[in-house]
Amino acid sequence: MPATVPDASPDIEAAAAAFAATFRRDQLITDPAGLRTYECDGLSAFRVRPALVLLADSTEDVVAAVRICTTYGVCFVPRGAGTGLSGGALPQANGVVISTARMRKVLSIDPDNRRMTVQPGMANSAVSAAAESHGLYFAPDPSSQIVCSVGGNVAENSGGAHCLKYGFTTNHIHAITVVTPTGEVVRLGGSSADPVGPDLLGVFIGSEGTLGIVTEITVRLLVRPIAVRTLVADFATAEQAADAVSGLVSHGVIPAAVEMLDQLAISAVETATRAGYNRDAGAALVIELDGFDAAVGEEFTITERLCRDNHASNIRIAQSPAERDLIWKGRKSAFAAMGRISPAYLVQDGVIPRTKLAEVLTRIAELATAAGLRVANVFHAGDGNLHPLVLFDSDDAEETERAEQLSTAIAELCVTFGGSLSGEHGIGADKACSMPTMFSGDDLETMQRVRAAFDPAGLANPDKIFPTPRLCGERSGKYRPHPLELTGRIGRG
Amino acid sequence: MPATVPDASPDIEAAAAAFAATFRRDQLITDPAGLRTYECDGLSAFRVRPALVLLADSTEDVVAAVRICTTYGVCFVPRGAGTGLSGGALPQANGVVISTARMRKVLSIDPDNRRMTVQPGMANSAVSAAAESHGLYFAPDPSSQIVCSVGGNVAENSGGAHCLKYGFTTNHIHAITVVTPTGEVVRLGGSSADPVGPDLLGVFIGSEGTLGIVTEITVRLLVRPIAVRTLVADFATAEQAADAVSGLVSHGVIPAAVEMLDQLAISAVETATRAGYNRDAGAALVIELDGFDAAVGEEFTITERLCRDNHASNIRIAQSPAERDLIWKGRKSAFAAMGRISPAYLVQDGVIPRTKLAEVLTRIAELATAAGLRVANVFHAGDGNLHPLVLFDSDDAEETERAEQLSTAIAELCVTFGGSLSGEHGIGADKACSMPTMFSGDDLETMQRVRAAFDPAGLANPDKIFPTPRLCGERSGKYRPHPLELTGRIGRG
Repeated sequence: MPATVPDASPDIEAAAAAFAATFRRDQLITDPAGLRTYECDGLSAFRVRPALVLLADSTEDVVAAVRICTTYGVCFVPRGAGTGLSGGALPQANGVVISTARMRKVLSIDPDNRRMTVQPGMANSAVSAAAESHGLYFAPDPSSQIVCSVGGNVAENSGGAHCLKYGFTTNHIHAITVVTPTGEVVRLGGSSADPVGPDLLGVFIGSEGTLGIVTEITVRLLVRPIAVRTLVADFATAEQAADAVSGLVSHGVIPAAVEMLDQLAISAVETATRAGYNRDAGAALVIELDGFDAAVGEEFTITERLCRDNHASNIRIAQSPAERDLIWKGRKSAFAAMGRISPAYLVQDGVIPRTKLAEVLTRIAELATAAGLRVANVFHAGDGNLHPLVLFDSDDAEETERAEQLSTAIAELCVTFGGSLSGEHGIGADKACSMPTMFSGDDLETMQRVRAAFDPAGLANPDKIFPTPRLCGERSGKYRPHPLELTGRIGRG
Repeated sequence: MPATVPDASPDIEAAAAAFAATFRRDQLITDPAGLRTYECDGLSAFRVRPALVLLADSTEDVVAAVRICTTYGVCFVPRGAGTGLSGGALPQANGVVISTARMRKVLSIDPDNRRMTVQPGMANSAVSAAAESHGLYFAPDPSSQIVCSVGGNVAENSGGAHCLKYGFTTNHIHAITVVTPTGEVVRLGGSSADPVGPDLLGVFIGSEGTLGIVTEITVRLLVRPIAVRTLVADFATAEQAADAVSGLVSHGVIPAAVEMLDQLAISAVETATRAGYNRDAGAALVIELDGFDAAVGEEFTITERLCRDNHASNIRIAQSPAERDLIWKGRKSAFAAMGRISPAYLVQDGVIPRTKLAEVLTRIAELATAAGLRVANVFHAGDGNLHPLVLFDSDDAEETERAEQLSTAIAELCVTFGGSLSGEHGIGADKACSMPTMFSGDDLETMQRVRAAFDPAGLANPDKIFPTPRLCGERSGKYRPHPLELTGRIGRG
């Protein structure tokens, strides 16, 4: 079994001295107040203060930093914008955080071949903005897209509302430059859709910082669709809404997005955003179609008919880009909106076969009732990617513990229905201990071997993804909400 | 540097005895006449007679075979239908071939979730046939689809004419069961589009038999499109045809397929199939659109206009399914058709940025003239995936050598234009020696480490993909055409 933590004792003091000798003063954070920002990412349940943060400016900086870490046996945690929801950027107390947040430049753009090379710290929406004058955009659209970084999207293989039709980050990356945990600079991927040799680009994307640090990203750009139509359909029950989704898929319609909100989520969203969702509905579907005019028109007719056949009580069609934006604003701020109806909440992220949607939602409601807690559901229905939000009072230690157990039970429920522990938020520190519910010992061992192939010393983002006694033994009862979570300025998911 | 061949001396005699004691007589081939079939795959230039062939019936058979190999340090080469074009299934003289060709069962089908689990020996087109009653099909469509196996498609990450719109094999596999080179059975992938942990499913697909043997495959099925329209547009020059392709892509039209044939390819295809291509054209595009009626109608109008804008001299529109089938029959038998105009030919497979099509075709013609040889081009124009066919006389040893050098020069030319050594046929034994033109030493070292993570003893398909002194030192002047190649019963590519 390859080690995931270094064998030799780390010498963090010697490493810190080497960092001070190598980098400019304004690139290093070592004071407790400055380090506080880096104690956690979007999953504020886990907090650890790192020894030192480096704000890298270049690939060369990252190489130098990684080499110092390997020299002194110190582990390092890569960090983008820190919006991840599974604790993937959680530091180690005797470790270093290597931030690429300052690396925000466009390095080149080739509109004819629809490619752009950027640094990893660029915000996801800034990538699309930089391509806009060419009529092009970058498709992955996590709800946090205004702040989350494209480097973080690569690390987590981020999705978003439109990945039903357009796929995940991995479907939109041509090539990346990576600093491996042994300090080499390698270029993964290239110009062919079918990569030559083992697909190291594919294995890196979604590896959550465990295989190295990405420093340049060549993204694939898409042509903006000519026509976009968006509707919100109300249903009495989530089951009816789920049947409408199944109908769409079995008719071969692939909408750009199919999002579902249940009654509690609609209520929170309306309280927070007044986006015009109907509070009386048991469930709402947001369905968006895009493409050429005639195609969208034809698919829209089928979509409307299928919603009505499945007993939609009302269908609201966006009449303008502004109305469309408002519908999406409501959906994309749904997580943050929970702060209006509950002092705290946990975001879960699981996947189930789409045909099991109604059944799993019923089982989640039963688990919530048994736990005496409320669960709101807002999710990517077309993908079967659930985001149950467990609401609780963080001032009540016992209820906090119960909420955490319920959230974990929901993720593991997804696995028992033939699904997955994570759709797009990653495993990180949060769900490593649930991995054995989904994978055999041989499966995990094979993954560990690939990890060790990149990182023989186990210094890159240790204690993530894989269950270890240290990690899983310490886990329960450690939830400590952070004030930011209660106000949740940025909707995610 | 991890070893790619075992350190200990292999004991093939002891291994053969263990095979005889473990398997039924009808599962083993050891006589020279029987072994002859297994000396090469679709790349008959390289031929090696293996010591033994096992025809596996089950995952358990594969486990037992791999364990015998590891016990005695004997290497093994996985083999599907043997239609690969890069020598990926080329045996080793003291090694074993493990064939999954007999494993041809459908294990389960779930039409609601559009999934089917099959054994790897099923022919590609048999997978679609098994799903047909549900209105579903398996999208990857290599030209050899009537015989090539889905297990081989996984090993090579096979493409086909329709991968412009639908992607490669890797985009159509939910999960696989794999016997690793250490004899463990692992399940890679699952139900989520965003895999949890390192994407081992992605790294396995396209690994050309170097990471283990796939024994069960859960494929993703698609709904058959309602409308399909196919046209053949004739152009005076390949440059005009290439401009039409660029126009389509920049207008955001994504046809199901965009294939190009040059004048020499058209001539060969017409001689062989009488599919109705125009022998007077300098180049022909086969363009297919599919989807809903109105969408296809709209895109078809744009396509016709763009072909005319780029000086198409004639546009023939398929008026019936039979006419469409005939157009495709011509395209899909293009490789085989070369046998009608040349005693032998080499199939190359490289990728270039689509915007460089016209320029690279000119450079290929110049290289051909300089070598005094004819090159026909028939390829996936939408992807920039070229298949130059180098025609030569295999009775002329000097010309054979020249043809081989020209073919290699064309592949390496693609790399210099920012492209790739292989689009869909793999690296195998054929192009391993060209890998350093595309990858740095660090890149190759990282790939080797991942390979060694799966295969620490280096027993799985050694001397493939990666350049070794043994492989590359022996290479030149070894081309020996096989009679089958001259008649080429099955078109591929």
